[in-house]
Amino acid sequence: MLELSGIAVSDGVAIASAYCLIEPDLSFEKSRISDIHAEKVRLKEACIKAKNQLAEIRAIADRKFGAEKAAIFSAHLLLLADPEMLAAIEGKIDDGWNAEFAVQETANEYIQIFEAMDNRYMQERATDIHDVSTRLLAHLLGVEIPDYSSISKDVILVAQDLTPSITAQLDTSYVKGFITDRGGRTSHSAILARIMEIPAIVGTKTATQELVQGAPIIIDSTRGKVIMNATQEVLDEYLEKQQAFIEQRQLLKQYRLCESVSADGHRVEIAGNIGKPQDVELVLANGGDGIGLFRTEFLYMHRHELPLEEEQFLAYKMVLEKMQGKPTVVRTLDIGGDKNLSYLKFVHELNPFLGLRGVRLCLAQQDIFRTQLRALLRASVYGNLKIMFPMIATLDEFREAKAILLEEKQKLRDEGIPVAETIEVGMMVEIPSAAVIADLFAQEADFLSIGTNDLIQYTLAADRMNEQVSYLYQPYHPAILRLVKMVIEAAHQNGKWVGMCGEMAGDEIAIPILLALGLDEFSMSAPSILTTRAQIANLSKVNLSTHLEQLLTLTTAREVEAYVKKYLWQAR
Amino acid sequence: MLELSGIAVSDGVAIASAYCLIEPDLSFEKSRISDIHAEKVRLKEACIKAKNQLAEIRAIADRKFGAEKAAIFSAHLLLLADPEMLAAIEGKIDDGWNAEFAVQETANEYIQIFEAMDNRYMQERATDIHDVSTRLLAHLLGVEIPDYSSISKDVILVAQDLTPSITAQLDTSYVKGFITDRGGRTSHSAILARIMEIPAIVGTKTATQELVQGAPIIIDSTRGKVIMNATQEVLDEYLEKQQAFIEQRQLLKQYRLCESVSADGHRVEIAGNIGKPQDVELVLANGGDGIGLFRTEFLYMHRHELPLEEEQFLAYKMVLEKMQGKPTVVRTLDIGGDKNLSYLKFVHELNPFLGLRGVRLCLAQQDIFRTQLRALLRASVYGNLKIMFPMIATLDEFREAKAILLEEKQKLRDEGIPVAETIEVGMMVEIPSAAVIADLFAQEADFLSIGTNDLIQYTLAADRMNEQVSYLYQPYHPAILRLVKMVIEAAHQNGKWVGMCGEMAGDEIAIPILLALGLDEFSMSAPSILTTRAQIANLSKVNLSTHLEQLLTLTTAREVEAYVKKYLWQAR
Repeated sequence: MLELSGIAVSDGVAIASAYCLIEPDLSFEKSRISDIHAEKVRLKEACIKAKNQLAEIRAIADRKFGAEKAAIFSAHLLLLADPEMLAAIEGKIDDGWNAEFAVQETANEYIQIFEAMDNRYMQERATDIHDVSTRLLAHLLGVEIPDYSSISKDVILVAQDLTPSITAQLDTSYVKGFITDRGGRTSHSAILARIMEIPAIVGTKTATQELVQGAPIIIDSTRGKVIMNATQEVLDEYLEKQQAFIEQRQLLKQYRLCESVSADGHRVEIAGNIGKPQDVELVLANGGDGIGLFRTEFLYMHRHELPLEEEQFLAYKMVLEKMQGKPTVVRTLDIGGDKNLSYLKFVHELNPFLGLRGVRLCLAQQDIFRTQLRALLRASVYGNLKIMFPMIATLDEFREAKAILLEEKQKLRDEGIPVAETIEVGMMVEIPSAAVIADLFAQEADFLSIGTNDLIQYTLAADRMNEQVSYLYQPYHPAILRLVKMVIEAAHQNGKWVGMCGEMAGDEIAIPILLALGLDEFSMSAPSILTTRAQIANLSKVNLSTHLEQLLTLTTAREVEAYVKKYLWQAR
Repeated sequence: MLELSGIAVSDGVAIASAYCLIEPDLSFEKSRISDIHAEKVRLKEACIKAKNQLAEIRAIADRKFGAEKAAIFSAHLLLLADPEMLAAIEGKIDDGWNAEFAVQETANEYIQIFEAMDNRYMQERATDIHDVSTRLLAHLLGVEIPDYSSISKDVILVAQDLTPSITAQLDTSYVKGFITDRGGRTSHSAILARIMEIPAIVGTKTATQELVQGAPIIIDSTRGKVIMNATQEVLDEYLEKQQAFIEQRQLLKQYRLCESVSADGHRVEIAGNIGKPQDVELVLANGGDGIGLFRTEFLYMHRHELPLEEEQFLAYKMVLEKMQGKPTVVRTLDIGGDKNLSYLKFVHELNPFLGLRGVRLCLAQQDIFRTQLRALLRASVYGNLKIMFPMIATLDEFREAKAILLEEKQKLRDEGIPVAETIEVGMMVEIPSAAVIADLFAQEADFLSIGTNDLIQYTLAADRMNEQVSYLYQPYHPAILRLVKMVIEAAHQNGKWVGMCGEMAGDEIAIPILLALGLDEFSMSAPSILTTRAQIANLSKVNLSTHLEQLLTLTTAREVEAYVKKYLWQAR
């Protein structure tokens, strides 16, 4: 029996055999060739094989998972047909090098250029080139590449990290859990696991080295452990735990149609965060009271030009109609930072998280902003729309953004296009300066929504995606609690409501504190809604409040966590 | 007459002719060659010419500016003799390419690799390779490279940006001002200009295109303007202004031996920031009351291994002795972020300013930290040493750093090595979380020093080095003023003193506010000390205080600035 530790990023118990994603051995000798023509024929043959294989995989992916996932293989096929890249490879063969070297060298050159861009979209292109050149190399060397789409029995995936290009190939119905060497709470694997409602342990560092292909594996998310070759006794114990977990999940379903209200009758709103219109279904299935954060980046990414006003309008309208009058908070474009667009020119930034993103970019490129606002305003008559601006740091920015919105509203009215009478206009509080002067903002904004993911990383000056400092991503840091308190008090003093749409809003340690502080709206990923509603139903706001003073004297995040576990969880 | 605008980053009036640093035209055709041997001979000849030229320039630099500046050319000579790089160039000639292409292609490959490292040391290596390959290319093409060291009359330098490799070649006594297309307040050109006490206008965008070689130029830092071909009338006006400026500077000298005290008798400390031991002289020459920030990175940079304890000890001892009992605050190593070391392994970080830097790195690599602390403790008996830790975000970090310091102190005592009885141990408040819970820190730290450069960039989530968002570097943002107020009050309530060692401490708009808030120590670059002392001598703290309440209700940085100019500057 072998035990490994990691960070549990998605709840549950999984029991299945290990499926290790192993990179095939593609080592080769760099060598000089004499017959240039023959080498080019080898290359051409490998290309044809790769194309046929990709076309096949794409067809399977399309059938199994739909067009969206199949698109990645279309991108690979396009790359294989790219005359510029082929010319570069052939050029190296002309220089007298063997095809393997020519392929790898060309791929490396391209990858280096794309990776140096520090731009997530371009880095994904680097991943595509890596995938395609790997496939070409494999065919040149006669080595087989594992076909992930062929998995046809229950497995727990073990990988260094899961990239979108791998997960696109998976039939997720067979995947019962993830274990990775790298990654943190907000990595691709973690987010995917929570959406799939399967347990995941990331950051084990050594899982791919220690876990054996096909060996029986148990994931225990409550302890953050992975167990290989469990004894029958341990296995029985976990079969029981798994059953209990499933029953617990069933139990939660009873909260689907309940109101979000504490044990002592204090009503809150528990809403969902969505990243694309289709996600609305999951929020409604989990009984969400509304949408607290509708991210609009999906409209702009993975394409070659800006989305038209009409296309945006239809997407917003669809969500508003599906929400049937429930509050729907749309965040205007938050591009920049690590999310760039291929068709807009982005200047390379040394620290993109501290760069031109969110409302900064929108105010700098107002045509993009105005198109989005017009689409939103036109959609406003189809539901209960609220608009908020991301990355507000100064009152100047909020005033300017709001003024542009009012201008566009007036223009639409002048054109005779209907716009809802009242649309609340609020802002994200995710930059420390905004939290510190929340009282000034609350006089001008209709609501505030605390974006804790960014607020925490800026307040502690620690990139939450950087493993070296991820220990500083501390939602319970006394400074974070104080800032949240300041924001809530500032809003209430001005008769405004406050929401929270970061991970913290669905965190079982944070929830009692947030309830005590008076947070009005908790917005989270759909799978957390019912757990949160159940937790709040079992807490008394009045009892919790008696602890606040004491809680706010604590000096470290660890002390806060211990205090919550000791006192607040029982504050019925 | 032509006028250009830019950012004035160093005060004064300069009148001299333009010296434009123009990159020579080194364009060439990429071509196939037939005689490989002859091409290699061409390459070799160009190498020899470049070596001879470099040796000559190095000798001049050594004679004119000393060994430190000459070192850069030794690095170039080493590169020219690097067998690996030469082999790479010759390899490309073997492949049938002309020498020009072989040199440029090889250089580009190296530069791409070094630049992709996002590490300032490595990026400087990229600059070296660029400089050397440019010189080689010039010799291959028979083009002359401007020799900056040949400047022998008064000039105003005009450049896209000034790199250390250019400024190392200048005889600064002839340089009366800088004008650059790019850069901001903290760029190399700006810092150098302030140290040299010459005016500089950066970020003009078009200076290199619009200013003509040899044309008469005026720099007016008060208006942030550059004037070319001024009329006699305008010129006379500026000759007068220049005279007035020089007299004003002379006037300030009378404050050199004065105490730092406001018009109504409130005493403060005005100290200097230094980056290497020699800088002490400039602080003393300007009558500094102490050293408020001794940066220790110089000990670790531009070398190939960690500095030994003894070397560090001698540097600290020298500064403490020169300060003759005046308070000397040493900041422990603040490496990481954009300041990396070639001999330590740094993981590439997407957002280095939010990464493993300052005390985070020291706690992760305690051997480095302990060596520095031992050197500091041993030096403590030679003066009035105070130690502070940078980048503290949590109490855990401060407690751990202080515990390590006390451990090393005890060890030294056990070894019979003398250590000062009382050494104040404080911290930088430069991360928003530290400012927000300054009351908790003030219970455990002996003093707090507000590092506004970082505090502002984290609080507003804007990289101050990124021109796209540098407008968000707002020292007068109401949130910054509130945080500063919180920190000062927290310290005073716990009987501790508070300093400030960012640019803001020497800023004439900020000074009246800081004085009113009760800041105890203002630490700044040496040339600002006398201006600050003169300004404070003309301000009454009591009168300023009556404005505080009103000031703190203002909503934007612009409102604050206007209010200070209208009321506080006259608060005598």
